[in-house]
Amino acid sequence: MDYQPRPDEVAALVLEVAGLRGALAGIDAVTAADDALVRQVLEEAGRFVAARIAPLSRSGDEVGARFEDGRVTMPPGFRDAYRAFWQGGWPALSARPEDGGQGLPTVLECVLYEWLTAANHGWTMAPGLLHGAYECLRHHASDEVKARYLQKVATGEWLATMCLTEPHAGSDLGLVRTRAVPQADGSYRISGTKIFISNGEHDLTDNIVHLVLARLPDAPPGPKGLSLFVTAKFLPDGARSAVHCERIEEKMGLHASPTCVMRFDEACAWMVGAPGRGLGAMFVMMNSARLHVALQGIGLLDAAWQKADAYARERRQMRAPGPRAAGAPPGAAAADPIIAHPAVRRLLDTQRAWVDGARVLAYRTGLELDLARHHGAPERRAAAERWCAFITPVLKAACTEQAFVGASDCLQVFGGHGYVREWGIEQIVRDARVAMIYEGTNEIQAIDLLVRKTLPDGGAGLAAFFADLGAAGADAARFGTLVRLAAAIGRAAPGQAELPYRIAGDFLRATALALLGWAWSRIGATAGFGGARWDAPRRALADWILPEFAMRTAIIETQLAQAGAPPNPP
Amino acid sequence: MDYQPRPDEVAALVLEVAGLRGALAGIDAVTAADDALVRQVLEEAGRFVAARIAPLSRSGDEVGARFEDGRVTMPPGFRDAYRAFWQGGWPALSARPEDGGQGLPTVLECVLYEWLTAANHGWTMAPGLLHGAYECLRHHASDEVKARYLQKVATGEWLATMCLTEPHAGSDLGLVRTRAVPQADGSYRISGTKIFISNGEHDLTDNIVHLVLARLPDAPPGPKGLSLFVTAKFLPDGARSAVHCERIEEKMGLHASPTCVMRFDEACAWMVGAPGRGLGAMFVMMNSARLHVALQGIGLLDAAWQKADAYARERRQMRAPGPRAAGAPPGAAAADPIIAHPAVRRLLDTQRAWVDGARVLAYRTGLELDLARHHGAPERRAAAERWCAFITPVLKAACTEQAFVGASDCLQVFGGHGYVREWGIEQIVRDARVAMIYEGTNEIQAIDLLVRKTLPDGGAGLAAFFADLGAAGADAARFGTLVRLAAAIGRAAPGQAELPYRIAGDFLRATALALLGWAWSRIGATAGFGGARWDAPRRALADWILPEFAMRTAIIETQLAQAGAPPNPP
Repeated sequence: MDYQPRPDEVAALVLEVAGLRGALAGIDAVTAADDALVRQVLEEAGRFVAARIAPLSRSGDEVGARFEDGRVTMPPGFRDAYRAFWQGGWPALSARPEDGGQGLPTVLECVLYEWLTAANHGWTMAPGLLHGAYECLRHHASDEVKARYLQKVATGEWLATMCLTEPHAGSDLGLVRTRAVPQADGSYRISGTKIFISNGEHDLTDNIVHLVLARLPDAPPGPKGLSLFVTAKFLPDGARSAVHCERIEEKMGLHASPTCVMRFDEACAWMVGAPGRGLGAMFVMMNSARLHVALQGIGLLDAAWQKADAYARERRQMRAPGPRAAGAPPGAAAADPIIAHPAVRRLLDTQRAWVDGARVLAYRTGLELDLARHHGAPERRAAAERWCAFITPVLKAACTEQAFVGASDCLQVFGGHGYVREWGIEQIVRDARVAMIYEGTNEIQAIDLLVRKTLPDGGAGLAAFFADLGAAGADAARFGTLVRLAAAIGRAAPGQAELPYRIAGDFLRATALALLGWAWSRIGATAGFGGARWDAPRRALADWILPEFAMRTAIIETQLAQAGAPPNPP
Repeated sequence: MDYQPRPDEVAALVLEVAGLRGALAGIDAVTAADDALVRQVLEEAGRFVAARIAPLSRSGDEVGARFEDGRVTMPPGFRDAYRAFWQGGWPALSARPEDGGQGLPTVLECVLYEWLTAANHGWTMAPGLLHGAYECLRHHASDEVKARYLQKVATGEWLATMCLTEPHAGSDLGLVRTRAVPQADGSYRISGTKIFISNGEHDLTDNIVHLVLARLPDAPPGPKGLSLFVTAKFLPDGARSAVHCERIEEKMGLHASPTCVMRFDEACAWMVGAPGRGLGAMFVMMNSARLHVALQGIGLLDAAWQKADAYARERRQMRAPGPRAAGAPPGAAAADPIIAHPAVRRLLDTQRAWVDGARVLAYRTGLELDLARHHGAPERRAAAERWCAFITPVLKAACTEQAFVGASDCLQVFGGHGYVREWGIEQIVRDARVAMIYEGTNEIQAIDLLVRKTLPDGGAGLAAFFADLGAAGADAARFGTLVRLAAAIGRAAPGQAELPYRIAGDFLRATALALLGWAWSRIGATAGFGGARWDAPRRALADWILPEFAMRTAIIETQLAQAGAPPNPP
């Protein structure tokens, strides 16, 4: 069963719960999107994803990207599908009109990429970095470089990569060794080896643009010595650049996406941004890139749920407990569809609670990204920036973890049939695993939330973010608990340097659960979200998901008590 | 890095914590195993596993079992390794001497299969069902059938399969349709299609024995109409039997183990046991078969931990928090080994807490299996049977779940390097996933524990099992909580048929945690288990694992409260 987007449900979440309606009015940089336009864009996106992208997922996994003599051949149909994607204007959905884009709200691009990933994670890796590269060039490149690359990347006519990781430098980019030597004409020569470069080489587009982190000859060691450069497979004069794919990795999943080892042999390149400011130039797009990974998690989990839900309605095994449904055949052998079994229903409803709640949070973050960039009032921009700063690591980690764990749960619905290729569910589990690693491992996200963003101001920023949510009741109590814990961790940390690092994962997870509860309160408070479709996941949230909040906070409290720094009473 | 068994540590756990020393004295059916013999057997087993089986794991995954024209070719080296295994007497380790076995305690066979799986899960699937088939034939086959097959299976000269599942009949074997038609000479003709038959066809042994669940022409529908039959690839007269492998499955992992679709075309077979008692004949070996799957989980988790631990000691990324170790190089670029990072240490210690605690429980269960069969005192046999009945589903579900989740956690230690094939960690995650499904899905285990075994006597058997453990302090409190919850669930269940099924997974999980706590108390109370090697996982248990107990019981209590049946106060 291929993935089927649900534009009706998603449009309602975007407009009414996440609050797109009216939120961007008066912001000239973003095309005003009324209800009708939102629905139309999402319906067209849904049709495109279902018709062109979803059918290529299984063959993409089975055939995979092939490497031979430095060239990568993408799986059958990928090139045509990408051409249709580019020519349909989809890559440019939320790029600026002056760069060849449509200027639509970021949240619509968010939905598009969620669905693309749900339909075909491997294919979606190719355009997945486009928007980030576009933003990076737009903000940091010289006019000359922009003239060469900006529109090509904005429209997706050329695809782009991010060349950061090296064999010895993964989470710690300060260890990057690739060198960039300045030339008399203002260009640079780049030499070094980069690994884990998604779509570093392929046959989807006529050219491939590479953003490369490297070190000038006189640069200091560590992250402050890194600068950013741009090169491409073919240089402006049409010559082949000295950047080559040496091999592609054999991976657990995502076989349709070539993960390349790229060798730069004095490749001609140009600097993007200032010397020594390479990390900063890349981090400008960090929030939106991490949000995209969170959306991948949401999409993959929804795809896994769709498969398991459909299977559970067809497959019959054993009688379910309780009174028989009217019209059910009698006798011991009259097995029920397995969705009638309580453990299966619990499992499916739990995934729906995650998908729908996380959608509200992610879509709202898409809106806040636009507000942070373009709102007229500085205090509103600050609030939006705060939203994005705090929620992005939480969503990245929680959504990707749930995608993997939840897809594995969905696999379990199939029994032995889930472990074989036939139903496609095991592919989702394999594909989803990587999202817990890339764009900063989930452990890095937890440190980002607690150590980098929450503790430095004693938790004041986090408290302000929570206050912005206007929570009440149990939601407000959970946020209050987190603020008190953050303050206590902050008091304990100076004497216990390891403490925040040990419990950062619990803190992130508890924050994710509190936010999920808040999102479902929003859904519950919105007209039109009643009935079993929404009541069952809301109950699953309360019964099966939110109890973990108390466990996480208890773990943190025990560590604080051991450190002699218990939180203040509420 | 190939798996390295640790006979020293495991011998100490078997002898001193699980309590083999002296436990089987005076039981003639089991060869007396003194300390020296135990250590010698485990050392030889460890050498064999490391030298012959572990090196074939990666190529087994990459090459896989190949199917062509009804034949299955096993990966390179598998046949020679199996021949060495058979000729070394390893399959017969705990078979009876009169059947060609060595009569050693079952617990030593448990350790052997744990290590074999840790070293090479795919290869180990081949002999994995041997002992179960042996027990089944020994207890239920006629003398004529025994004469034909018992010794061949006991010694492993021929391998054996279990042919249960059909396309429409998985967890619900009552739906099996394969027919068995009696012949004038007392034999039967079997017709039907079986799926998910591990090693249904291969080139490891000269013959393959099949145990087949089928239905006589006049049998009633449902599970009571099932009888058990035995046939083989080659019949006693040397003729090829009418049982054929139609294809093998493409799976998420375990590529070295052919998962066969087997077609029976009026295949000549003989009944094992009485008509209509087929399920009972297979279930005689259920406890030991499920224990073996639990041991697979333990082995896979230990293998994943070994890889992650070794990697974490080599790989350097970023400075760890806290004061620098003496002799560490200065400067920002002087990254620490990632084992110095608190989140990595927490993750590794957590897996060790699971492996070592679960080992104590599983090894003790191996002992109890022998006591249940052979002890002279009926009340001791009853206690041993109770132990096996209650603990087996708990260990099967908890150890296989932790193998998958924990191996995935260990993969995370590698970052992006974990997602590629190079380090072998992603293979463990893929291989481990199936153990949550086969030998009864983990959901079936939870229902077995709560609905089939705990509730029918109001929790009395469970309470007696817990009392046998002689727990004190926090361990005793946890067991007491479980007994009170079981009683409350029993009171609520008559009016709320779905309730036990909804929370069976939580009940099993809480039981697993309580037992893990008890096992670690045993380790802590045993001389020689001190120092960082044992203190770090014990602390991880308390800090990171056991807090889940309160979450699980809170979930159950909420459901009971909603059903109007709160548990009694302690």
